[in-house]
Amino acid sequence: MIDSFQKILVIAAHPDDEVLGVGGTIPLLAQAGKTVDVLIFTDGSSTQYAGDDKILEHKFKEAELAMKTMGANLLPRMTFPDMRLDTVAHVDKNSALGEIIQKGQYDTVFVQDHTDVNRDHKEIYDSAVVACRPVPGQCVRYLLSYYVNSSTEWGNILGGQWFSPNVFVDISETLEIKLKAMEAYQTELRDHPHPRSLEGLRTAAAYFGNTVGYQYAEPFRLIFAR
Amino acid sequence: MIDSFQKILVIAAHPDDEVLGVGGTIPLLAQAGKTVDVLIFTDGSSTQYAGDDKILEHKFKEAELAMKTMGANLLPRMTFPDMRLDTVAHVDKNSALGEIIQKGQYDTVFVQDHTDVNRDHKEIYDSAVVACRPVPGQCVRYLLSYYVNSSTEWGNILGGQWFSPNVFVDISETLEIKLKAMEAYQTELRDHPHPRSLEGLRTAAAYFGNTVGYQYAEPFRLIFAR
Amino acid sequence: MIDSFQKILVIAAHPDDEVLGVGGTIPLLAQAGKTVDVLIFTDGSSTQYAGDDKILEHKFKEAELAMKTMGANLLPRMTFPDMRLDTVAHVDKNSALGEIIQKGQYDTVFVQDHTDVNRDHKEIYDSAVVACRPVPGQCVRYLLSYYVNSSTEWGNILGGQWFSPNVFVDISETLEIKLKAMEAYQTELRDHPHPRSLEGLRTAAAYFGNTVGYQYAEPFRLIFAR
Amino acid sequence: MIDSFQKILVIAAHPDDEVLGVGGTIPLLAQAGKTVDVLIFTDGSSTQYAGDDKILEHKFKEAELAMKTMGANLLPRMTFPDMRLDTVAHVDKNSALGEIIQKGQYDTVFVQDHTDVNRDHKEIYDSAVVACRPVPGQCVRYLLSYYVNSSTEWGNILGGQWFSPNVFVDISETLEIKLKAMEAYQTELRDHPHPRSLEGLRTAAAYFGNTVGYQYAEPFRLIFAR
Amino acid sequence: MIDSFQKILVIAAHPDDEVLGVGGTIPLLAQAGKTVDVLIFTDGSSTQYAGDDKILEHKFKEAELAMKTMGANLLPRMTFPDMRLDTVAHVDKNSALGEIIQKGQYDTVFVQDHTDVNRDHKEIYDSAVVACRPVPGQCVRYLLSYYVNSSTEWGNILGGQWFSPNVFVDISETLEIKLKAMEAYQTELRDHPHPRSLEGLRTAAAYFGNTVGYQYAEPFRLIFAR
Amino acid sequence: MIDSFQKILVIAAHPDDEVLGVGGTIPLLAQAGKTVDVLIFTDGSSTQYAGDDKILEHKFKEAELAMKTMGANLLPRMTFPDMRLDTVAHVDKNSALGEIIQKGQYDTVFVQDHTDVNRDHKEIYDSAVVACRPVPGQCVRYLLSYYVNSSTEWGNILGGQWFSPNVFVDISETLEIKLKAMEAYQTELRDHPHPRSLEGLRTAAAYFGNTVGYQYAEPFRLIFAR
Repeated sequence: MIDSFQKILVIAAHPDDEVLGVGGTIPLLAQAGKTVDVLIFTDGSSTQYAGDDKILEHKFKEAELAMKTMGANLLPRMTFPDMRLDTVAHVDKNSALGEIIQKGQYDTVFVQDHTDVNRDHKEIYDSAVVACRPVPGQCVRYLLSYYVNSSTEWGNILGGQWFSPNVFVDISETLEIKLKAMEAYQTELRDHPHPRSLEGLRTAAAYFGNTVGYQYAEPFRLIFAR
Repeated sequence: MIDSFQKILVIAAHPDDEVLGVGGTIPLLAQAGKTVDVLIFTDGSSTQYAGDDKILEHKFKEAELAMKTMGANLLPRMTFPDMRLDTVAHVDKNSALGEIIQKGQYDTVFVQDHTDVNRDHKEIYDSAVVACRPVPGQCVRYLLSYYVNSSTEWGNILGGQWFSPNVFVDISETLEIKLKAMEAYQTELRDHPHPRSLEGLRTAAAYFGNTVGYQYAEPFRLIFAR
Repeated sequence: MIDSFQKILVIAAHPDDEVLGVGGTIPLLAQAGKTVDVLIFTDGSSTQYAGDDKILEHKFKEAELAMKTMGANLLPRMTFPDMRLDTVAHVDKNSALGEIIQKGQYDTVFVQDHTDVNRDHKEIYDSAVVACRPVPGQCVRYLLSYYVNSSTEWGNILGGQWFSPNVFVDISETLEIKLKAMEAYQTELRDHPHPRSLEGLRTAAAYFGNTVGYQYAEPFRLIFAR
Repeated sequence: MIDSFQKILVIAAHPDDEVLGVGGTIPLLAQAGKTVDVLIFTDGSSTQYAGDDKILEHKFKEAELAMKTMGANLLPRMTFPDMRLDTVAHVDKNSALGEIIQKGQYDTVFVQDHTDVNRDHKEIYDSAVVACRPVPGQCVRYLLSYYVNSSTEWGNILGGQWFSPNVFVDISETLEIKLKAMEAYQTELRDHPHPRSLEGLRTAAAYFGNTVGYQYAEPFRLIFAR
Repeated sequence: MIDSFQKILVIAAHPDDEVLGVGGTIPLLAQAGKTVDVLIFTDGSSTQYAGDDKILEHKFKEAELAMKTMGANLLPRMTFPDMRLDTVAHVDKNSALGEIIQKGQYDTVFVQDHTDVNRDHKEIYDSAVVACRPVPGQCVRYLLSYYVNSSTEWGNILGGQWFSPNVFVDISETLEIKLKAMEAYQTELRDHPHPRSLEGLRTAAAYFGNTVGYQYAEPFRLIFAR
Repeated sequence: MIDSFQKILVIAAHPDDEVLGVGGTIPLLAQAGKTVDVLIFTDGSSTQYAGDDKILEHKFKEAELAMKTMGANLLPRMTFPDMRLDTVAHVDKNSALGEIIQKGQYDTVFVQDHTDVNRDHKEIYDSAVVACRPVPGQCVRYLLSYYVNSSTEWGNILGGQWFSPNVFVDISETLEIKLKAMEAYQTELRDHPHPRSLEGLRTAAAYFGNTVGYQYAEPFRLIFAR
């Protein structure tokens, strides 16, 4: 199915989400010669490490390294506040996303799912669906949501609504690239058995792979194709 | 997205279901040089017109004409009892479908949805998902369910669970072929405002088309892509 | 069922929502001699046309014309900010609505549905259900939500939860009034195949009509009757 | 809302279901001069008391007494097997119901809900929705499902899908008639705290009544009104 | 099941919620020698009785009396604004709760459900699930949500998603303590048939009790046990 | 939570289901001195290996070895037809289960989930919930459903309703016993990456373990506790 995608935007609330969710699929797209742009929507650290500008810079360095590993382009950084997207008016987030999507004329958009436990992920999902709604003339033809280790699993248990993937991409050939890209995010890696450890990532990829007859897979929910 | 499909099977409980649900998409696939086989799973009339062999023959003549109009192949007729699929053991339907799918090595399967009000449609859905389940070695890579005018709408209202399409195919260029194929089924056409009238088919196609920015569209639910 | 309604309030987030959702049913109620008041909850344009007071005035002129066409009364204008209802505290919206409902002693309230893609619609739904909750002494006996062309369809696809109507009003006799009332809103009309075009409105009314055996219908979800 | 109903059919899988679910509303309808017919769909005892013809006769005597108490008419007895409706072909139940509904030209039908734990209730719901589907010319304008003490509560807990009433009828004036009608069914009454005891019936009616600001109420789910 | 709980935290948005939801279970836990701490998350009256400091003090006196009746400890009062939790950033509520939970090393947490009609209840649910998410080292092993008379019932009807309890605690022995604790909250008691009257509380407890074969019960939803 | 269980029944449609779902929890219960009985509901092979009596005997030998490995007791074999439970009347399955449960006076029952893709699993779930419904005097106090590798994952994708576990048992200490018990079922083991391979079982246990902060876990859905 990913053969149909031509110009791809991956939206991530925080640096590392794009690797957790799409880190094995991005290399497949890049290897096929497709353009993959990654937009990190928040400053990524203003709440978690308040007042520490260095770590903010550091995390975007990590992001650049991850992009290089996967073959993606990092779009210019946005300044929405990390972990506080619920304090920004819905329409302002919608407009910001809408401009980037229309300017880039992406036919394919990946975004986080509203079933995640992380509120920023829900907010960015809500804004993406507005920005990608199928008005006549809309450039987006494929909208998919992705799975974020630890946030999606905990959303499943805690939120009462399960992430329901219907697209599974075989990443048996690119899992090692995904893990290497994740290693770039030293500040975000956790120790096993945390699901955001390298071993946790491998386990989840094997779990979804076995579900559909592959060694490793990444799960997505196709929101619409048109 | 339909570019990705190579060899396609459309499963229909009764003759005409395949036109109602996929009648605009089949010509697009056929025009692109893809093989589209149609399997009609029941005898199509044993309950509705009990004891009348002529009408049974007649309906399959209608089906052949519809296939020709759309550019599809009609597979050999099966003998499961029309409107009584719930009286056949689940495993026997599964096996029959499974054999055909594995023999044909289809990568794409279309089937009716379990939210329909028609019990035969639910039964055939249940068997198709078993026959297409993603065991290692499974040939099916795309499984989609389709919308059947009158059965799907009434299932929406009456069953408590709505058909939730996520794939919309632009059939603005092939709507007239779909209507012509439906005209082949004189025994199944109803008068407007019945949703299974020619005008009803046009209305539903316009409704789903407008929803996603097209003049006419057919809606599908992607069950899985792998 | 609409015979049971005596004094009706239609709540709309923005001018034109009341026509899109209830524009065929309001004339039926008015022709039967019932009082139908329409409350437009936001200023209707402060975000969309920021700083342009003239257009704000203009849109309310359009609203007055639409009301006259349908036979409804326009309640005094409220000043909640258009497209930014999520920035107003929930309790303040609840109180404002509650006062109007109790003062008007409405037995029937129509409001937009929380499945819509538009955030303002969700917010106004949430406040209406609080204001109409069935405490002893509550005047509201019927609470229904309505369908808004483009916002409801896109909410269906994008939000993961479908609008599930259970009440269908035959508007075959009043569709032309609905379309005429919509023509009053020149600033909001879109070109076909946008679902908020005149042809789009006709298509949706035919679609829901055919679903229940009528030529044209408006769909509603009965939230409660008591 | 019940003012809108003109000729009413209450479908019950077993004798006593009609009292448990509609036993307070039937007297209100009867007192308003409406015709209320009750159809008991199974023989009511062939499985529970296999081979005991006397008890079968006895239960229908109880039913006649209950009807008299509520002001309803008992339709001629049907012979579908009690507790074994799943062994009868779906289409045969649909046809039997359809004939009775079309012959009686009922505009309002009450039936048990598919969320009940009792399989017969699910089966009869499935057949009623087929028989009442809104084809052009359909006489049924209101279809509602009702709550059956013990079967609905247990279905809520065990089945994973809750009965979701949206219509609440104030039975404060007729609760005593309901309890008296239930007393007619001596074979079906259970001891408190079983929900099918007289005290259990009173508790459930108070619970749903308090929910909507009344002393006692019966809850229904409006499936459609047109 | 409550035998497994060792150190318990009950989170309540407003004073009296803890009695409505857990008022019969707390005495059972206290009688078994378990520690039960109650955290009231808002000031409890700043919106409802704006500017009236006396009533704020008064309500916490009522709370202390209720705690004494049930055998629970009242944690130091928090100052989040009553009925306006939606105006506080999500992360700030999460942090406040997280600190208290980790400091107290609770293995069991009770919180209100997100299906309630009251927005504060939804907000506190959302923060509790973040604070209790199962990271390695998390002390919480049981997370349950509880039923709040009037708010939960109205949420069921109005919100479209039902509270779905799966744990039922037999409170036949402690119902009188619950009612006595509720009597402490004179400012919050309502007249019958309001569900927040003493008779309303007894009715709901009998309703859920009968559902599972007891005289009186309190219903909970187990969110997770690990 | 498993400390609360006293006498446990594990119901399995086919030999090996009990290991796939409860194979790590059974040893924990057995080691704590609890009685764990396993009931295999079908003959286990009459459809899959029609006419081959030897394999039927063989599979029950495998089952005995698995029981010994886990510390469970195998109840006398039942003769319901494998893969054809849908052809047996619902009430006959209910009665058979009910007798065994009441005779054994089990307080805890584990059963397969109705979201599984396998029809036998759905049928046995439906019968178990009837047999365990909370009538006064019911011995069952805990009813849980379990996860079956391959059947549950495929049901998730194909059926539209996800298995939603809320109880996670830490099986880090007993995973090796589970794998050894599975090795007893040589006829049912598949090659990796099939989810019913030994490596597939380890992956799923790691996946659910990481989700809740453990190395390995088994997921269950608590249907009710009372």
